[in-house]
Amino acid sequence: MPIPPGPFIGRTLARLAQDLRDGRTTSTDLTEQALGAAAALDPALNAFVTVDGTGALEAAKAADDELAAGRDRGPLHGIPVAVKDLIEVAGLPATMGSRHFTGYVPGRDAACVARLREAGAVIVGKTTTHEFAYGPTGDRSANGASRNPHDTGRMSGGSSGGSGAAVAAGIVPLALGTDTGGSVRIPSALCGVAGFKPAYDAISADGVFPLSRSLDHVGVLAGDADSCLTAYRCLTGDEVPERAEDARVAWLDASDLFAGDPEVVAVARAAAGSAGEPPEIRLPEGFAEEVLRTYRTIQSCEAVAVHAERMERAPELFGEEVLERLRGAAQVPGWRYVRAVQDRERLIAAAGALFEHHDVLALPTAAITAPPIDRREVALGSETVPVGVALLSLTCPWNVLRFPALTVPAGTVAGLPVGLQLVSRPGDEALLFSAARRLTA
Amino acid sequence: MPIPPGPFIGRTLARLAQDLRDGRTTSTDLTEQALGAAAALDPALNAFVTVDGTGALEAAKAADDELAAGRDRGPLHGIPVAVKDLIEVAGLPATMGSRHFTGYVPGRDAACVARLREAGAVIVGKTTTHEFAYGPTGDRSANGASRNPHDTGRMSGGSSGGSGAAVAAGIVPLALGTDTGGSVRIPSALCGVAGFKPAYDAISADGVFPLSRSLDHVGVLAGDADSCLTAYRCLTGDEVPERAEDARVAWLDASDLFAGDPEVVAVARAAAGSAGEPPEIRLPEGFAEEVLRTYRTIQSCEAVAVHAERMERAPELFGEEVLERLRGAAQVPGWRYVRAVQDRERLIAAAGALFEHHDVLALPTAAITAPPIDRREVALGSETVPVGVALLSLTCPWNVLRFPALTVPAGTVAGLPVGLQLVSRPGDEALLFSAARRLTA
Repeated sequence: MPIPPGPFIGRTLARLAQDLRDGRTTSTDLTEQALGAAAALDPALNAFVTVDGTGALEAAKAADDELAAGRDRGPLHGIPVAVKDLIEVAGLPATMGSRHFTGYVPGRDAACVARLREAGAVIVGKTTTHEFAYGPTGDRSANGASRNPHDTGRMSGGSSGGSGAAVAAGIVPLALGTDTGGSVRIPSALCGVAGFKPAYDAISADGVFPLSRSLDHVGVLAGDADSCLTAYRCLTGDEVPERAEDARVAWLDASDLFAGDPEVVAVARAAAGSAGEPPEIRLPEGFAEEVLRTYRTIQSCEAVAVHAERMERAPELFGEEVLERLRGAAQVPGWRYVRAVQDRERLIAAAGALFEHHDVLALPTAAITAPPIDRREVALGSETVPVGVALLSLTCPWNVLRFPALTVPAGTVAGLPVGLQLVSRPGDEALLFSAARRLTA
Repeated sequence: MPIPPGPFIGRTLARLAQDLRDGRTTSTDLTEQALGAAAALDPALNAFVTVDGTGALEAAKAADDELAAGRDRGPLHGIPVAVKDLIEVAGLPATMGSRHFTGYVPGRDAACVARLREAGAVIVGKTTTHEFAYGPTGDRSANGASRNPHDTGRMSGGSSGGSGAAVAAGIVPLALGTDTGGSVRIPSALCGVAGFKPAYDAISADGVFPLSRSLDHVGVLAGDADSCLTAYRCLTGDEVPERAEDARVAWLDASDLFAGDPEVVAVARAAAGSAGEPPEIRLPEGFAEEVLRTYRTIQSCEAVAVHAERMERAPELFGEEVLERLRGAAQVPGWRYVRAVQDRERLIAAAGALFEHHDVLALPTAAITAPPIDRREVALGSETVPVGVALLSLTCPWNVLRFPALTVPAGTVAGLPVGLQLVSRPGDEALLFSAARRLTA
């Protein structure tokens, strides 16, 4: 069952900023709208672990006072924002989606949260994360599954599932997430919003609980791509031009990464062709298999490196599925990790060739629409495939390569959102967003 | 049984260079001396896998012609040099000490060999390496054990055992080696010569067969420390000053790394005190255990990453001992490698404190003198300890930390050489060599 639209549906950050400065609204007003929507809609969504009404209203008042006094912190000033519960916010519980962190309240802000505050944003609460961000479905968490606003019987995707659901439901206009193999882009695609995973380390991961340090990226989710760009610029101070020349876009036939649901692929393909037919390219021979193997190996070893003592001392505090995955990951031998790190370097070098004649590659974000909560296999044609593989295979390569990747809404299949994923080389973010603008015009 | 001294005993590179330029000798003469000594002495030592008489005499003639024509390539011009068989020399077999490489003849020079040639050095042959450099004893190799010139029934140490034996026997005045956990310094100490492992990557490892890429260092062995410095400067182009202010030397009580043979420790300690009593320091709490564990974990995983296919396809071509070690190393889980790489960063940061009040740390190089060939355990007091652990424990920490480390002859115990190891921070090489000069004056 879909839920009714919240107050921020269709309102871009640019529009909200204008309204705030034109006196048509206040940060307090926006924050009250967000808090009201959370109270009304979240029981059905479980997008939030913690809502900080008091702190948010205080911050909103301060933002309003500053604007009134002529101090303008820029595009995020006074904007309500939700923060994934894997990211530390001083004074608010951070559960990491796990019972291991019951009662944990960090004393300081993550670097990205500190940037949000400096930019005048209002933090309204913490959003549900898949347990320790270790899963793309968003339905395993100490506080329960986050649910898809388009059909609350279906998964939000994950691991930043609460952020995806909160933005898609219009509870907030912007949320922070993290993305190790697709954890910003997958819930964005499944819930029908825009999500941006920047280049590696473009936004500091300091104060973010690690899943796999060399693959973890902090990213942003918003209703549209330009709002993601606005937030990205505020978070990094990067001078990405708002406008850029037309990007040369190619369609990447990603079927050797994963042969997705043909209807989903067709919707993404149509969006990619909406401003003219792009050339079609494929990955180099062997690339797909190698990049997926590299992803699994690096993620497995680095995840266990984070959790080994917890696995030993308090295995019962893990959810069953995550513990089982970690135990499997603990078996990966060290020499394979060494190889994977070497392979990553080679893959990054080889990936350059993909961009020789193109600035932006377009492909589906997730290969399927949102499955029902708890579903672990889906039928594709005559085959049955694991849901996790179907969700991650088209996004995780760009974590291995550390390239910026953006998902934008491309349409629907049977009423469920489909994402178009756009990828560029680091440094070409302006072209990436110009392509998004053109294809969603 | 000791062997008779070869032609280069007691002749420094500076002296040889002077003699060449004063017309007292020629490169052809020096090369003939080296080839003659190899023919006479090597049957007892097995220091050489390959002697290239023809190539060496050609290179020597070219060096002589150049000098006669006024072209002077510097301190290594016309000097006979031996190269460890793990390092590729174009046109000469490179066995890596293994039957896996029987008949392999590389087509190009390793980067360090190319530098040698540019500097006018004469390559006389390839020296015995412990099989794939995977062992500190030097007595496991496809071409048999290299032997200690001081007692041919004893091991040379390894893995650059042939280089150590060849220099110590006076067959050549200089040899190249590699050092992953002590493989230049251990044979230098056990055979009674000087050996220098520079800072990580100071000499390129390009064209060197890897043991453990992030720990592998290319180094030099010579009769005295200043000859090592001369060779190091020629190989790197580094402008290490020949003279430096007096280094502040401290004695490192390394008993928590390994409690060595008290007589060996006493000889090294006396050498360290030969120019005044140094202050004594210890490693920080927990440092020793952590650095040794980090070494083992990184080396194990990286070594198997090099050999996994050979282990699978042709295990019978490995020597039994090396294969057994590799099979054990293959069991180390990936997450432990991830931890070890993180630990290394922390250890490098923590090691800075050791040098807050001192420029150079002095400690024994190997904790024992050369054991008999094939011996795998030694008695120390009431304990029996593995030979490999006794040989490596005082050298391998500086591979983990990537600090420059030099061994110089410190004296003997029961007629067998003892090395004094001197360690500095990267960039302090001039102080390191000035300390060596002062302590061996």
